[in-house]
Amino acid sequence: MEVSVGVVGLGNVGLGALQILTENAARIREKLGFPLKVRAVCSRSVQQKKLPACSDFPIRTTDWREIVCDPEIDIVLEVIGGTATAAHVIEEALRQRKSVVTANKELMALRGAEFWTLAHQNGVNLAMEASVAGGIPIHTVLREGIAGDKVMELYGILNGTSNFILTEIEKSNAKFESVLAEAQQLGYAEADPSADVDGLDARSKLAILAALAFGEKLTPADIYTEGIRRIMPVDFEYAHQLKHTIRLLCLARQTEEGLLLSVRPSLIPQSAILAQVQGAYNAIWVRGTYGEDTFYYGRGAGSKPTGVAVVSDLMRVAREIRFGSPERVSPFAHERLGEYKPLPIATQKLPYFLRFRVEDKAGIIATLATVLAKHQIGIDAVLQLPREDWRDLPFVVTTQPAPEQAIRDALLEIRDADFLVESPFAMPMERGF
Amino acid sequence: MEVSVGVVGLGNVGLGALQILTENAARIREKLGFPLKVRAVCSRSVQQKKLPACSDFPIRTTDWREIVCDPEIDIVLEVIGGTATAAHVIEEALRQRKSVVTANKELMALRGAEFWTLAHQNGVNLAMEASVAGGIPIHTVLREGIAGDKVMELYGILNGTSNFILTEIEKSNAKFESVLAEAQQLGYAEADPSADVDGLDARSKLAILAALAFGEKLTPADIYTEGIRRIMPVDFEYAHQLKHTIRLLCLARQTEEGLLLSVRPSLIPQSAILAQVQGAYNAIWVRGTYGEDTFYYGRGAGSKPTGVAVVSDLMRVAREIRFGSPERVSPFAHERLGEYKPLPIATQKLPYFLRFRVEDKAGIIATLATVLAKHQIGIDAVLQLPREDWRDLPFVVTTQPAPEQAIRDALLEIRDADFLVESPFAMPMERGF
Repeated sequence: MEVSVGVVGLGNVGLGALQILTENAARIREKLGFPLKVRAVCSRSVQQKKLPACSDFPIRTTDWREIVCDPEIDIVLEVIGGTATAAHVIEEALRQRKSVVTANKELMALRGAEFWTLAHQNGVNLAMEASVAGGIPIHTVLREGIAGDKVMELYGILNGTSNFILTEIEKSNAKFESVLAEAQQLGYAEADPSADVDGLDARSKLAILAALAFGEKLTPADIYTEGIRRIMPVDFEYAHQLKHTIRLLCLARQTEEGLLLSVRPSLIPQSAILAQVQGAYNAIWVRGTYGEDTFYYGRGAGSKPTGVAVVSDLMRVAREIRFGSPERVSPFAHERLGEYKPLPIATQKLPYFLRFRVEDKAGIIATLATVLAKHQIGIDAVLQLPREDWRDLPFVVTTQPAPEQAIRDALLEIRDADFLVESPFAMPMERGF
Repeated sequence: MEVSVGVVGLGNVGLGALQILTENAARIREKLGFPLKVRAVCSRSVQQKKLPACSDFPIRTTDWREIVCDPEIDIVLEVIGGTATAAHVIEEALRQRKSVVTANKELMALRGAEFWTLAHQNGVNLAMEASVAGGIPIHTVLREGIAGDKVMELYGILNGTSNFILTEIEKSNAKFESVLAEAQQLGYAEADPSADVDGLDARSKLAILAALAFGEKLTPADIYTEGIRRIMPVDFEYAHQLKHTIRLLCLARQTEEGLLLSVRPSLIPQSAILAQVQGAYNAIWVRGTYGEDTFYYGRGAGSKPTGVAVVSDLMRVAREIRFGSPERVSPFAHERLGEYKPLPIATQKLPYFLRFRVEDKAGIIATLATVLAKHQIGIDAVLQLPREDWRDLPFVVTTQPAPEQAIRDALLEIRDADFLVESPFAMPMERGF
């Protein structure tokens, strides 16, 4: 007895999934013991889509309602993206007692717990492997592979576009704006790059992963988020002097007081495996109480890698439909349990990398040192590369571990100093992984 | 309704699993929606074992039959190891219609397909995450996480002891024998180190992973295996000159002609993430047709990391017992399908690193070059570090890509040459991952 799928959305991910379902059908059937058939596909422009050769999908429609109401469809694959129509598709499909597989990080980060409840009430499943880190099966790992562990820390590079931009700045010493333009030309960055370079996309993914890892109800608003627009090539020069590099680091760390969550450019040691993650790749480092360190790496996006995540979810959900759907406990907590209460990031205590752009004047270091001392922040090093332009001299102060609140207070106190070309820029320095 | 476990074997892994099941019980119950209880533990020396505090296991026995025959036990955890008693425990448990979770790589590599059939006939499950790569959930990844992909290549560092020894030789320039002695003192290597340093342990693990990845019936005997006893510190010096390092690489690679399988010391580029794997860690690189590259890294052994693998398997199997066991297709093929027929490793075509130890005489390079030319092997480079001892001058020839058979024939032809201190040593040079 076959299991039938309706595909809503024929963009990159939808077409990638269809290609795999078609080309790899024999292997999938062999692994499952029954066929997984695509019964219907839906797209606003379904007539113009190039579908896989020798594909035989009985229903091709522009109306998603036709798919969610089709009694012969068991699983609805939502790969439209966004939070508007996609929400209606998922909600209506679950109400019609169809399991849903989705790649929608934004929607799952915002309303995952709610949709899960709806799925549970209707006795169906909701799967979202493809919503985070493309081809890396991190959901499967957290849900099943290391289910017995108690996760303490999770560090990720979860946005391929910003990692591509950062590693290009690092390699070519080019400015953020010109690398962004290059990434846009290559199709790695959108015309409106905000979701990628301002950390919003990474934030959605971290919200989903942290909810899964800690079993805590979290929303994107719980996560301190800062993008990569302020990164200059000189930041990499200074970071390398310190044997570090810079990545847009997604962090979820349990401390005795609660959970620290952030997405922000951070210094990480060059010796860390995470520092080897180049270009559009994604990676996740997990530290468990019992299993200690594990690390997962792969393509963060792309039609076929994300397609593998979608198809693997379809197989799992199909198996459950075929052999009786097991009752499941939600991967999302429905209320805050309190054990992992999100803490203000300002309570975090780490060494910081402070970069100042100044006009060369006498007494700058003395002024900075006085303010830092006033806030009980110890200076670890002062770094200054030789520069020709005395009107924009970027130099760096690294600090001893200090509460972020003290750093903020100190920087606020000097932000209007007349020697500053722009407000100071601070990044935490993470220790090894 | 709880699910009951009987633990057979209270060594490192058994005690690690018990610690996690006890300390982490509340979280496990929350994730499952029901409790997972240890009803019985068994060990020849059960009276002497230090069991977790506040543990309440009603049955403590020295007779495993008591556990496999107990009608109230749902899952038998076999963590004795070895192929003798363990085989009886697993077979008898499956016949008694109990699911089995095992960490036994040796037995699963030899008889996994047979035990799977027995499990299937009895309507129960057989899980073996802990049999390969300790804390890395590679079974879950291959079985579910990337189930939709078609794996083409798999490269692993699967034996922590030999990786520890190799990276120690690399760091300290010490000889194999003294590093092995150090590893034995630290408890990283056994008194009889053969299973680790001769590649046999890694071979069992590769047999299991390759069967899972390619769906092909494989046995350890299908895998060309060579250990690390011949590695000298000077090999690392030469490898570094070539911007490579040396690891005991487990390889399963599909070519157009068939499947290449080997466990052997190999040169890998220093820029590869796999080259970052230090000490007792394990790692696996998977290349899929659709998902492209993914990489998995973690502790290769240890009581608690392997315990996480065991407990995660127990949770999955318990969930299936509680909610109706789904019929599953074996991860082991029961006969050779032929699509991935193992090929003789001698058909492999790669560049090779050939290390010769010679007494300094005139005409050595000329002799070698003549023999290599006769076998149509192109020389890429000749490397010679300055040495004081002219009676044992190790130098290296790297070749253009050549069939391993040609390399073997050429080396055979000169193995009795009077200038050689010992027979030549050859390692393949892998390209990037």
